[in-house]
Amino acid sequence: MIPLAQDVLKGNTRAIARAITQIENDHPDRETLVDDLYSYGGHAVVLGLTGPPGSGKSTLLNLMIRRERALGKKVAVIAVDPSSPFSGGAILGDRLRMQRHSTDEGVFIRSMASRGHLGGVAGATGDVIKVLDAAGFDVIIIETIGVGQTEIDIVEMADVVLLVLVPGLGDEIQALKAGVMEIGDIFIINKSDREDAAKVKAEVEYVLHLKMSAEDTSTNPIVMTSALEESGLDELHTTIQTYYQNLKSDGRLEEKRKKRIAREMKLILLAKVRDRVNRQMKLDQHIDEWVEAAYQKQVKPYAFINEKLSDFFAGGV
Amino acid sequence: MIPLAQDVLKGNTRAIARAITQIENDHPDRETLVDDLYSYGGHAVVLGLTGPPGSGKSTLLNLMIRRERALGKKVAVIAVDPSSPFSGGAILGDRLRMQRHSTDEGVFIRSMASRGHLGGVAGATGDVIKVLDAAGFDVIIIETIGVGQTEIDIVEMADVVLLVLVPGLGDEIQALKAGVMEIGDIFIINKSDREDAAKVKAEVEYVLHLKMSAEDTSTNPIVMTSALEESGLDELHTTIQTYYQNLKSDGRLEEKRKKRIAREMKLILLAKVRDRVNRQMKLDQHIDEWVEAAYQKQVKPYAFINEKLSDFFAGGV
Repeated sequence: MIPLAQDVLKGNTRAIARAITQIENDHPDRETLVDDLYSYGGHAVVLGLTGPPGSGKSTLLNLMIRRERALGKKVAVIAVDPSSPFSGGAILGDRLRMQRHSTDEGVFIRSMASRGHLGGVAGATGDVIKVLDAAGFDVIIIETIGVGQTEIDIVEMADVVLLVLVPGLGDEIQALKAGVMEIGDIFIINKSDREDAAKVKAEVEYVLHLKMSAEDTSTNPIVMTSALEESGLDELHTTIQTYYQNLKSDGRLEEKRKKRIAREMKLILLAKVRDRVNRQMKLDQHIDEWVEAAYQKQVKPYAFINEKLSDFFAGGV
Repeated sequence: MIPLAQDVLKGNTRAIARAITQIENDHPDRETLVDDLYSYGGHAVVLGLTGPPGSGKSTLLNLMIRRERALGKKVAVIAVDPSSPFSGGAILGDRLRMQRHSTDEGVFIRSMASRGHLGGVAGATGDVIKVLDAAGFDVIIIETIGVGQTEIDIVEMADVVLLVLVPGLGDEIQALKAGVMEIGDIFIINKSDREDAAKVKAEVEYVLHLKMSAEDTSTNPIVMTSALEESGLDELHTTIQTYYQNLKSDGRLEEKRKKRIAREMKLILLAKVRDRVNRQMKLDQHIDEWVEAAYQKQVKPYAFINEKLSDFFAGGV
């Protein structure tokens, strides 16, 4: 076992931070590190927290951390912002949050804004979960900014996905929700102090009802919270616990985790094949001349690529 | 040339619709169709239209179509909604829009909600652009719902990206904007009738100023529009025209189109390699046992994948 992996297992905060940086930067030790730690994981509850901008995820997150700490649980948070080329925002958010929990050894908060390389940001998130899990955190929360496809890919690494919705973000936000409704396990209607919160709840119930009749009979709980009034947090905590226990006892947790492993395997496999193709085809070296030929309409795009590929698989190029 | 390609070249609406469906569904003729049409394209102006939900893109789009039609231009619109597993929303939107333009042969409107296969939804969008371009449309508008990474990938297929912003969507929307500011060529501040529109304009100018000093000296125009008051549309039209002519004359249009070709080549190449790997490794057949081994911690994830890959490239598996 490499020394860094040993230090991670001891729960050393600086080692954990360094391990995550190695994953983000595709350090040569990344694979060994993750492989070394792999067999020590599997104990943490992994929560995904997502929802449209403006839904108050960060405030909610802080209250959730406080609650877990009061119960003596160690909590790690990864805030993933894949769409931001400026990492400044995420890092600033980190600092603000860190101030509150910075003296607490049982809380680890980190943002990832990099797109990563091997398996992209979802692949990196998967590896970071393995590190934090092996480091002994009881609860790992993956928070995403926004609700696009990339964010869905990330949040699906979790055991339980918490989808935060909020009143009054307009009709198009409601339409946007349709896409992410599919991935929510527990629905949080935040800012429940607002008068139209009940309407949002009714809408969610309606959509869930449609979804249920089509697919299965498992229930998706809805919890009303108000970060402002600090209400609903007890209920949220109990709901997550009950949901997780049910997942565990009826075999769905195992099923979910196997799905996650399958996704990760495919992600990494594909990334490695892509690297190999790039290298062996000398893609970076040839791409300009290929593009020029296509731009000048000297070649037809698919016929051209098919020819290059058959050369590649014939061992040539 | 296959008959469907011939009909597309004649501008036959039903043939165009069928061609797009073949692309979406990865019909066996997809590649031949695109290759047959490829040399007939390159004439259309391709616009990307994106912005956060609630920014009034659809209304703006309708006004843009009306304006192009008044000038005798043929217009095609593809509304791409990659994050929606329910295509219902997009299709409904289509129908509502179609009502207004349905009797007009010079307007073609179509939504794509499918994630596609070969090269994903960005690859499909690239092929659809080739079809519409060959079919003789003067202006092709690619509209995306939302502003995530997938949407950015799609809208980057365009020659000119119009980013629609709007006052009053809250601070997190402003943060979200940071990620997409990079891709906007022309910035539209819609709902300029609202009192805080000037503030948004000032913010955009500030961010553009930061961006400019770091990278280049090309200017990104900002246009204020109000779909409600139907104001700013003349200016928007002129701005797009001027911007496009400048791109053309200073060589940036060629550069952008070559970048698009490079991206498409890589997308398709990778998708084909992936298919080959899936087939040759019999991934669907083996994945369950591989996942079981990883779940039981009998194997270490990276070591395991590396072994499978070296078998694959050695011609075995």
